[in-house]
Amino acid sequence: MSIKQWKYGALVSLAALVAGLQGCASVPDGAVAIERQGSFFVGGRDVTLEGIPGVKLPSGITLEQNGQFLVESTYVSFQVPATRRSPHSLVMVHGGGHTGAVYESTPDGREGWSTRFLRWGHAVHVVDLVERGRAGFARMPQVWKDAPVYVSKREAWETFRLGAPGSWADASTARRGNPGSQFPEAAFDDYMRQLVPRWLPHNALLTNGLDQVVQRVGSTILLTHSQSGPFGWEVAKRRPELVKGIVAIEPSRAALAAADLPKLRGIPVLIVWGDFVPGSPVWSRFSADSEKFAADLRAAGVDVTLVRLPERGIRGNTHLPMLDRNSDEVARLVQQWMVEKKLVDG
Amino acid sequence: MSIKQWKYGALVSLAALVAGLQGCASVPDGAVAIERQGSFFVGGRDVTLEGIPGVKLPSGITLEQNGQFLVESTYVSFQVPATRRSPHSLVMVHGGGHTGAVYESTPDGREGWSTRFLRWGHAVHVVDLVERGRAGFARMPQVWKDAPVYVSKREAWETFRLGAPGSWADASTARRGNPGSQFPEAAFDDYMRQLVPRWLPHNALLTNGLDQVVQRVGSTILLTHSQSGPFGWEVAKRRPELVKGIVAIEPSRAALAAADLPKLRGIPVLIVWGDFVPGSPVWSRFSADSEKFAADLRAAGVDVTLVRLPERGIRGNTHLPMLDRNSDEVARLVQQWMVEKKLVDG
Repeated sequence: MSIKQWKYGALVSLAALVAGLQGCASVPDGAVAIERQGSFFVGGRDVTLEGIPGVKLPSGITLEQNGQFLVESTYVSFQVPATRRSPHSLVMVHGGGHTGAVYESTPDGREGWSTRFLRWGHAVHVVDLVERGRAGFARMPQVWKDAPVYVSKREAWETFRLGAPGSWADASTARRGNPGSQFPEAAFDDYMRQLVPRWLPHNALLTNGLDQVVQRVGSTILLTHSQSGPFGWEVAKRRPELVKGIVAIEPSRAALAAADLPKLRGIPVLIVWGDFVPGSPVWSRFSADSEKFAADLRAAGVDVTLVRLPERGIRGNTHLPMLDRNSDEVARLVQQWMVEKKLVDG
Repeated sequence: MSIKQWKYGALVSLAALVAGLQGCASVPDGAVAIERQGSFFVGGRDVTLEGIPGVKLPSGITLEQNGQFLVESTYVSFQVPATRRSPHSLVMVHGGGHTGAVYESTPDGREGWSTRFLRWGHAVHVVDLVERGRAGFARMPQVWKDAPVYVSKREAWETFRLGAPGSWADASTARRGNPGSQFPEAAFDDYMRQLVPRWLPHNALLTNGLDQVVQRVGSTILLTHSQSGPFGWEVAKRRPELVKGIVAIEPSRAALAAADLPKLRGIPVLIVWGDFVPGSPVWSRFSADSEKFAADLRAAGVDVTLVRLPERGIRGNTHLPMLDRNSDEVARLVQQWMVEKKLVDG
């Protein structure tokens, strides 16, 4: 980096020169310094297939479809900030129908939670669970026998509480959002572009992949969403020495066998619920499960915080607070909790 | 960022303080400063499905499988460095069987090309083409009627020139790499974890998605690999005002209709071929296509550089130079070419 690139006047040029001599460079306001970044894959298994005909490409290459295949890996992208404020890795896990992209940016182009938490000093790890995004597939129907399920626009709109049940209409002018909704409705199609299929019988597969991520990463703060909520409880139960905290955003299931509850002692847990829950029979039930789970955990000596955002004056959140217009505000609440629990320096 | 975090002695603390007053902070050696980063999706289309039964989740949610679905989007993750040395975006496109992960890290855990080029001042955009990674799917077989094809370990080993045809054996001890191969063979399984299926009839779909990426991004340097080589020629032909340069790593097809060749005038083209090509009938033919294409382009007034790495003394490269042990050396060659062509400041 040459002197001519410093554009902050003579004083700063001098400062930068001095800093440069000591192995430093300068970063404009708003930028974030990354010490290292990249991605890796964990887990999966070899399967051997036979009797499947090869496929000839127009180019003349024949793709042999028999033999050994490595299937069902889990993908992790990571960024370690230059100024790290936590000894733990923050492992961010998407929900059903989603990939890690849900944490990268909002559909209306704002900064996602992964960069937000990176700025706050976390070594951020964003996961694509098996079958999603860049993670591993397996041949269908020879290895994966079931058909995947897909998320329609109506399903996303109504189930994720962008609007009430019945509020979707195929003509976009007619759909009605929840009153005061924080979802960036004009970017709804941009949101839909990120949804991918899921395979219903794969919960154990996805959980095992997350377990392998935690074993690879080491000391971890798990941030889960919706479908991955229960994967988080299970991995914490299996690896209480590695999981140092759990943030569960609207977990779709909140329960552990009574004998397993004490295993979470020493792991602070934050459960976050958004707005419009009473209008949704499904999420009403799941959020009631969260209340019961929180009580059970507390009775077993676990430190649990259950936040209903509207009770903190944060209104309008859908099932997707990391994408809502006030995503930064919700992230800040999560970060403050992590600071309180001494998982990260404030 | 507080003063106490500066650990470079009093002189640097002073320099940093001065810099801080001007809106700067300091970055340790080896770190890279990011001005902004995130991801977005482009393209795709609505399809309406009928007559498919809903799927009931164990949780009680019924996933409606009819209605409107947004399918076939293209995914782009991006990072803009604080010190940008090119007005163009570097758009990196994977080859067949791969996703954008191929540019993020090497299987043996070294820094990938995306971070390498970022450090050299490029605004890096890494694409997952339709059907791959985080990009959009579509319901099978209702929308996508064809079955995908998968890459076996033998296929990857032999077709990507890690070893010669016939060199794979299922017992890992018996497989033989090409002599002097730069591929990190001990990490072969880690490499296999990133391979995903492809759908053979989708070339137009993938090309159209890349076209939409370029329209969204604007002024672009296209870096393609293998299968995406021909997508690059086609997009350059369609958008000669936006494509400012093309780097094609071992393009699997190199041709344009004669009438289209002059459209690439003013777009410098670099084609790179690795080692072990004569031992592979398929790549021998493709690299001969590249020679002919280069000659045709030159005859039409296009500035083309065709590099065979061994002729530059860079030996041992497979079909995957971005993953080979000398990936930095090959990246440097590409960067030097871009500097020569005034696509980026050196």
